[in-house]
Amino acid sequence: MPVKRGNAARVRTKALASDYTVSLHYDRRLYREDIAGSIAHARMLGRQGIISGDESKAIVGGLEKIRAEIESGKFLWRPELEDIHMNIEARLFDLIGDTAGKLHTARSRNDQVATDTRLYARARAEDTMRSLRGLQGTLLDCAEKNPSTLLPGYTHLQRAQPVLLAHHLLAYFEMFDRDARRFESARAAADVMPLGSGALAGLPYSIDRESVARELGFSAIASNSMDAVSDRDFLLDWLSAAAIAMMHVSRLAEEIVLWSSEEFGFVQLSDEYTTGSSIMPQKRNPDFAELARGKTGRVYGNLMAALTTLKGLPMTYNRDLQEDKERLFDTVDTLLPTLEITAGMLSGARFNEGRMRDAARRSYVLATDLADYLVRKGMPFREAHGVVADLTRTAMNRGKYLHDLSLADYRRASGLFAKDVLDINLEASIAARDTIGGTSPRRVADALKAARTRLKNARPREGGGLGAGDRSSTPASPPSGGEGG
Amino acid sequence: MPVKRGNAARVRTKALASDYTVSLHYDRRLYREDIAGSIAHARMLGRQGIISGDESKAIVGGLEKIRAEIESGKFLWRPELEDIHMNIEARLFDLIGDTAGKLHTARSRNDQVATDTRLYARARAEDTMRSLRGLQGTLLDCAEKNPSTLLPGYTHLQRAQPVLLAHHLLAYFEMFDRDARRFESARAAADVMPLGSGALAGLPYSIDRESVARELGFSAIASNSMDAVSDRDFLLDWLSAAAIAMMHVSRLAEEIVLWSSEEFGFVQLSDEYTTGSSIMPQKRNPDFAELARGKTGRVYGNLMAALTTLKGLPMTYNRDLQEDKERLFDTVDTLLPTLEITAGMLSGARFNEGRMRDAARRSYVLATDLADYLVRKGMPFREAHGVVADLTRTAMNRGKYLHDLSLADYRRASGLFAKDVLDINLEASIAARDTIGGTSPRRVADALKAARTRLKNARPREGGGLGAGDRSSTPASPPSGGEGG
Amino acid sequence: MPVKRGNAARVRTKALASDYTVSLHYDRRLYREDIAGSIAHARMLGRQGIISGDESKAIVGGLEKIRAEIESGKFLWRPELEDIHMNIEARLFDLIGDTAGKLHTARSRNDQVATDTRLYARARAEDTMRSLRGLQGTLLDCAEKNPSTLLPGYTHLQRAQPVLLAHHLLAYFEMFDRDARRFESARAAADVMPLGSGALAGLPYSIDRESVARELGFSAIASNSMDAVSDRDFLLDWLSAAAIAMMHVSRLAEEIVLWSSEEFGFVQLSDEYTTGSSIMPQKRNPDFAELARGKTGRVYGNLMAALTTLKGLPMTYNRDLQEDKERLFDTVDTLLPTLEITAGMLSGARFNEGRMRDAARRSYVLATDLADYLVRKGMPFREAHGVVADLTRTAMNRGKYLHDLSLADYRRASGLFAKDVLDINLEASIAARDTIGGTSPRRVADALKAARTRLKNARPREGGGLGAGDRSSTPASPPSGGEGG
Amino acid sequence: MPVKRGNAARVRTKALASDYTVSLHYDRRLYREDIAGSIAHARMLGRQGIISGDESKAIVGGLEKIRAEIESGKFLWRPELEDIHMNIEARLFDLIGDTAGKLHTARSRNDQVATDTRLYARARAEDTMRSLRGLQGTLLDCAEKNPSTLLPGYTHLQRAQPVLLAHHLLAYFEMFDRDARRFESARAAADVMPLGSGALAGLPYSIDRESVARELGFSAIASNSMDAVSDRDFLLDWLSAAAIAMMHVSRLAEEIVLWSSEEFGFVQLSDEYTTGSSIMPQKRNPDFAELARGKTGRVYGNLMAALTTLKGLPMTYNRDLQEDKERLFDTVDTLLPTLEITAGMLSGARFNEGRMRDAARRSYVLATDLADYLVRKGMPFREAHGVVADLTRTAMNRGKYLHDLSLADYRRASGLFAKDVLDINLEASIAARDTIGGTSPRRVADALKAARTRLKNARPREGGGLGAGDRSSTPASPPSGGEGG
Repeated sequence: MPVKRGNAARVRTKALASDYTVSLHYDRRLYREDIAGSIAHARMLGRQGIISGDESKAIVGGLEKIRAEIESGKFLWRPELEDIHMNIEARLFDLIGDTAGKLHTARSRNDQVATDTRLYARARAEDTMRSLRGLQGTLLDCAEKNPSTLLPGYTHLQRAQPVLLAHHLLAYFEMFDRDARRFESARAAADVMPLGSGALAGLPYSIDRESVARELGFSAIASNSMDAVSDRDFLLDWLSAAAIAMMHVSRLAEEIVLWSSEEFGFVQLSDEYTTGSSIMPQKRNPDFAELARGKTGRVYGNLMAALTTLKGLPMTYNRDLQEDKERLFDTVDTLLPTLEITAGMLSGARFNEGRMRDAARRSYVLATDLADYLVRKGMPFREAHGVVADLTRTAMNRGKYLHDLSLADYRRASGLFAKDVLDINLEASIAARDTIGGTSPRRVADALKAARTRLKNARPREGGGLGAGDRSSTPASPPSGGEGG
Repeated sequence: MPVKRGNAARVRTKALASDYTVSLHYDRRLYREDIAGSIAHARMLGRQGIISGDESKAIVGGLEKIRAEIESGKFLWRPELEDIHMNIEARLFDLIGDTAGKLHTARSRNDQVATDTRLYARARAEDTMRSLRGLQGTLLDCAEKNPSTLLPGYTHLQRAQPVLLAHHLLAYFEMFDRDARRFESARAAADVMPLGSGALAGLPYSIDRESVARELGFSAIASNSMDAVSDRDFLLDWLSAAAIAMMHVSRLAEEIVLWSSEEFGFVQLSDEYTTGSSIMPQKRNPDFAELARGKTGRVYGNLMAALTTLKGLPMTYNRDLQEDKERLFDTVDTLLPTLEITAGMLSGARFNEGRMRDAARRSYVLATDLADYLVRKGMPFREAHGVVADLTRTAMNRGKYLHDLSLADYRRASGLFAKDVLDINLEASIAARDTIGGTSPRRVADALKAARTRLKNARPREGGGLGAGDRSSTPASPPSGGEGG
Repeated sequence: MPVKRGNAARVRTKALASDYTVSLHYDRRLYREDIAGSIAHARMLGRQGIISGDESKAIVGGLEKIRAEIESGKFLWRPELEDIHMNIEARLFDLIGDTAGKLHTARSRNDQVATDTRLYARARAEDTMRSLRGLQGTLLDCAEKNPSTLLPGYTHLQRAQPVLLAHHLLAYFEMFDRDARRFESARAAADVMPLGSGALAGLPYSIDRESVARELGFSAIASNSMDAVSDRDFLLDWLSAAAIAMMHVSRLAEEIVLWSSEEFGFVQLSDEYTTGSSIMPQKRNPDFAELARGKTGRVYGNLMAALTTLKGLPMTYNRDLQEDKERLFDTVDTLLPTLEITAGMLSGARFNEGRMRDAARRSYVLATDLADYLVRKGMPFREAHGVVADLTRTAMNRGKYLHDLSLADYRRASGLFAKDVLDINLEASIAARDTIGGTSPRRVADALKAARTRLKNARPREGGGLGAGDRSSTPASPPSGGEGG
Repeated sequence: MPVKRGNAARVRTKALASDYTVSLHYDRRLYREDIAGSIAHARMLGRQGIISGDESKAIVGGLEKIRAEIESGKFLWRPELEDIHMNIEARLFDLIGDTAGKLHTARSRNDQVATDTRLYARARAEDTMRSLRGLQGTLLDCAEKNPSTLLPGYTHLQRAQPVLLAHHLLAYFEMFDRDARRFESARAAADVMPLGSGALAGLPYSIDRESVARELGFSAIASNSMDAVSDRDFLLDWLSAAAIAMMHVSRLAEEIVLWSSEEFGFVQLSDEYTTGSSIMPQKRNPDFAELARGKTGRVYGNLMAALTTLKGLPMTYNRDLQEDKERLFDTVDTLLPTLEITAGMLSGARFNEGRMRDAARRSYVLATDLADYLVRKGMPFREAHGVVADLTRTAMNRGKYLHDLSLADYRRASGLFAKDVLDINLEASIAARDTIGGTSPRRVADALKAARTRLKNARPREGGGLGAGDRSSTPASPPSGGEGG
């Protein structure tokens, strides 16, 4: 029996040259979006009298049956039909006969596929925001569990000034916070409905786009049909948000790798997140952190790929655009597990307070504090620096650290040093940095509290009824009421 | 005389190994941002009593003098001082003596340079928004000047359905509209003040960050000092917004190149925007469009460069970050002229209405309309498609277009065809697509009007007092009152 | 029963945190390489007396059985064992008991996996060379079938000078020739054996690397063990060769899309390589060309991904490197079908000689020839250009082409024009460009002949006994005897 | 006075729309290549009688004078003439009058600019090879100066097995060796002469391309004129070779940063290659290594930029190609100093033998050796691993390293341990890895010697008479006699 097709279907009069154009192996993951979009469309056609109420019902019923078949694993996928759309279409003909063809009234493959992809991108942006919020929560947990742990803050990978571990972890909280906002924007970018644009020029039917948008939970309707079928900006927004998020992950992963080394010894990852070798049971290779860092390349590559594909394409739809989905899917499949792994890895990590403090103590990270001390006593900046530089040099040459010096040593360097110079220690240094955003315990406690509040207030967009582990959306959620910035 | 330095300055005890680390040749363009930041900082130090009022005044006065020197071309740049900051600093010592050193109280090079770059990125985002708005205006002008011009809409570079030129141009309006919003986000991302974060840990002085932010027009203050000195997300937001905008430009440029070809002949560019050869005066090579398209690569490359540089950097400041500025500057220097050129090129372009209409007429772009006609008469979709396919094939074989067929021809294909089938023409086809976002004259007129309004309402952020052609910001603008994005 | 492992195996003492580290779904395609490498290793261990002859035979027998199981589809893949190596290893224990463990004597996972990947990359480079040679052959076929077809050569997509279609096609022959040489280099880069490097430092056994290399057909042996286990240059060579080849494909694809447009009408693709729509049977969308062009992005992205992943990795093996294989596999899976599709598409393409000639005739592409005519008659260059520019302008204003002008017209422009100016036509123009590399029929015929010879002499490296459609190598081919430049 | 132009010159009838198309600021660095190409061309025109001998001499004389003017700084650059070619051309008219116009006989801007760029790329490839060879030499120097220094070899940044520092450094020698060969290929790719291809179709003059190629030192002549004017593969070869070389640099730089940290303490950079702060004189920030690592992004970006620009360009020359040169120049300006800096940095580095040995000692890097010991005594692999794992765990729990265990401890674990187990130490472990490519002193000494020989034999291509610090080529070198692999 020949495959049945509606008006938007592509006709292949001869046997396929090859499976070069087949996309079923990846686009079948869009089945829920595709069916949801078709149901909303069919209902609207019925409401508008473009097809009869019975036809509309038959189509909706058929599509629901197909969805059930797919979800129960009973659907027979036919690669020779090339893509998810043709598979569902052909099955609909089997189920309800020629009425199936009416589903394609006032719709084209071009606006259909753009709608599916946007529904998917929107749902996955929501998932990503949830994962990011989860990771942020883990960072706060770690910070709260280690309130007074201190370590050297580094510049150039050189010990520079002591900081609280909680402060260090909050830096990552900020990064992932920006990421979550970036995905909020990516979600908003996807949240515009192309359906109703036809092949490129609009449609000669009295369709009702608003009601379809409402049913699919879209906040906005594409306002130019030519743009609507060829616009993939929402994908680029997604991919560049993902690239930046992976960059943040790579920085954290780099630190985990460094801190797991014998040289640093700042952190011990749990067994689940390390691998050893059969012969060196003590080995704790931070493979998960390395893989997360390595996968950054892949996500950057996906962004570059999509940008390249879109470069220089004339209006409107060109088949090059078929390449869009795999880049998104691969990015989703990389980013989401990476965020989860990162949270899990942090969650089970044991921070070695002793090693951290030791690293701070056995260093000259208090030099700045000594200079600030002299400045507060009235010494000009440059002169203070010179004095401290001399002191440090002297200490080094004697194989000592600054805290090993006696008051006499200090006073030999400058008469402005008084007994209270001996009070300058790691804790004091940290406490002194009591500015907004600074590392003092008071500021960090405030920052932690504020972070908790921000996290609580971060509107958790519910994709609605997602099955566990299921990466498909249920686009039947109510309209979100605007982009929300 | 040895160079004088403040506390954050980098000491070079020996002669420079080379000019590898020198950045003066590019970072001198930050002079206004650097001086504005220093002035705001010095004023605050005075207000807080960290330095005396007289010292504060001396510093501010010196800095204002330096700014004047630079702007009048009298400043002596010294490459051996490596960067803009050391150049200004050294000159300040010359002008006001040792008080100059006090400017570096409660500030580090790390938070200073991040602040400068953000001020610059913010101002350039504003410039870009203005250029984008200008280009959008030009598109509307072109559309309004050609209200009834029609041409074939293309898919796969094949003529598909007739559309209004105005509709086609409005597709680009939408693209650049998204770009402008993206730059609004990039602006907001830059609009967070790192100053007051110190080297990485905050500062042991009772500084007042809010007042500095107010003076510099920042809407927000970085809330974690470690993040603040190492965060370059605002740059990535800028660069990815630029990459996407260039992608849009490349699509438009591609169409201009195509339309300028003898084969299409849809557009004639003005002499200013073409080049010829001495021997072929009729030649109108669209060099500007080609260059704009070609420069897309450069902007993509800058994004990839920045992403790569940031990958895997541990906390906090690492010298790798010095690479950030040139990627931004090169992108600014590419994107802004490209947007202006594109607007200019469109502005002087003459659209060849005859060639466009001819291309639409000499085609089968009305086939869809014929099928829709039959469907409206009650024929099932698939059957209607078959009838029209046969009609088209027949016409082609007879060397005719569909509009050459007689009523008898039509009725031979299907008895449902009546006399009104002869009314199906380009205009009717266009008029029929009267859905939201469709190409009907009514919808396009509405869309044009709406676009004008949107453009008018697009808040033109004024960078404040920028000299003509000057790419530096005046960061003294009042606080913008929120991201608004 | 617990999984058995040899010395290089990674121990996982707890349940997997997730399937984040699992690679079986993609690395199982390396089974032939992995087994071939293990067999060669086991034989060598036996020969050297590191294990007994019986043990060696048992291992080799077991591995051959496993290969047969895999190839007959009977092998039970176990994802919980993570990768191809562990799957084969565990099965070997099942089959031959504890002797299986001896296979891992004097070998580590690090040198094993690098060896597998190199064998695979080498074989796929050979496949790619074959595909490129095939595509070059198709180009020559097309050129030979259309020996006298002429068309305008374009610069800036403007008609510039007439050329032979065969000459145009030979330009692509040259591009793919460079690609083939680039893959020859990529092959040579892969053709260096890491096996015998151990985990990173070499091995404390008297192994015989030369004999293993001979058996696996490697021309060279890695000369530094630390480099050997962390070097992925051969992969970058592969990926950048692929990126450049796809760039060439994208140019050809762009031209096919242009030439398939109604505006150009230079080529008609066969039905297999176009798609239509159910309603517009005349439509011949060049989807395959568009997809080929679009997939360029993907291959560029893979290169960028691999470069990013490798950036900044310290010595020696880091788990980030696991990301290498998928980038290669995806590139192989994209490039090879794209080359085949491109050849097929060209093979069935019908070039429209009439449209091409018409495009050349209805233009001013002979202007240069007129100027050259005057120069040869002694007129200085600049003056000749001026004369022809005037002539062209005059013709244009009268709605004529240059070949429409009379001798009188010519002589009015310059007395140097004689009757033979009327002999300047497309054929004459083409014939006149009789320089090396020029478009004259003689030169093109020579170039075609030379190209055929070059193609014939291009050493077809036989991967040896590859099954049809099988992308795995048989590395048992004899040593290739040098890189061959 | 109006600017004089030859036949290939682009005519601009109106004032420039902007300086968008101006390239003089960067392409003036091609002056030597441009003049050398013009001189060779003019001489050939004279020899072939296309212009007279006197004309030829006048042109050559004029061009030599211009070159002298440029090199003595007396040349007046005129940006309004847009590019280097027009500047030289206009000056030639000034100097020798209308004969200047004859230089453009039988040449077009398209083949001229491609020739210039190839000459430049070829010369810079030679410079790069020299720099790479220099860096390799420095690595050998370092290795030879530290023949017995040992350190832990790392996998996953975990100490794995002891190696010689010389062995570690030789790994980089291998990387840069591959880079040098890659640049040899890039050189060969550039070493093909496009001159004589005309605008795109060849030339209607009896030119002699071979003699021009000989004079310019080209080994080959482009064999298809259309390919010749639009081919930029040689540039991509250059840029991808550069990207891979920078990747290697980034790995070395990462290790230098790590090793410079207090935690590792393996290396102390010289003052020239570090920066400190005014207050922490002991600080040795590895800024040069960080910058080198950071600049990797820039070079990757340039490759991506060029690939993107070339994607999808139809035949033949398109103005997009103008973007090629800056990507090359920026890459040259980044890569060459980076290689020099890296060599300088290594050269002055002091390796801390004590810290390295300590890191190896205070670890369990000998576990593999213990297992190999047992295997040699006949214990099956897996069992040996189990025994050592238990030993290691026991030692760890007792706060000891393996070398702290007594013979009794060992024998408790297995009766196969005999007194000679106590001989297993770092030196013995290293000595035992005596396979080709292994880290044993004997193998490393051999490898060093072989490396010296390879380096000596690496044919130093002399660009010929390059002034110090001058990045321009003298293309008058004799033909190189083949690619040489």
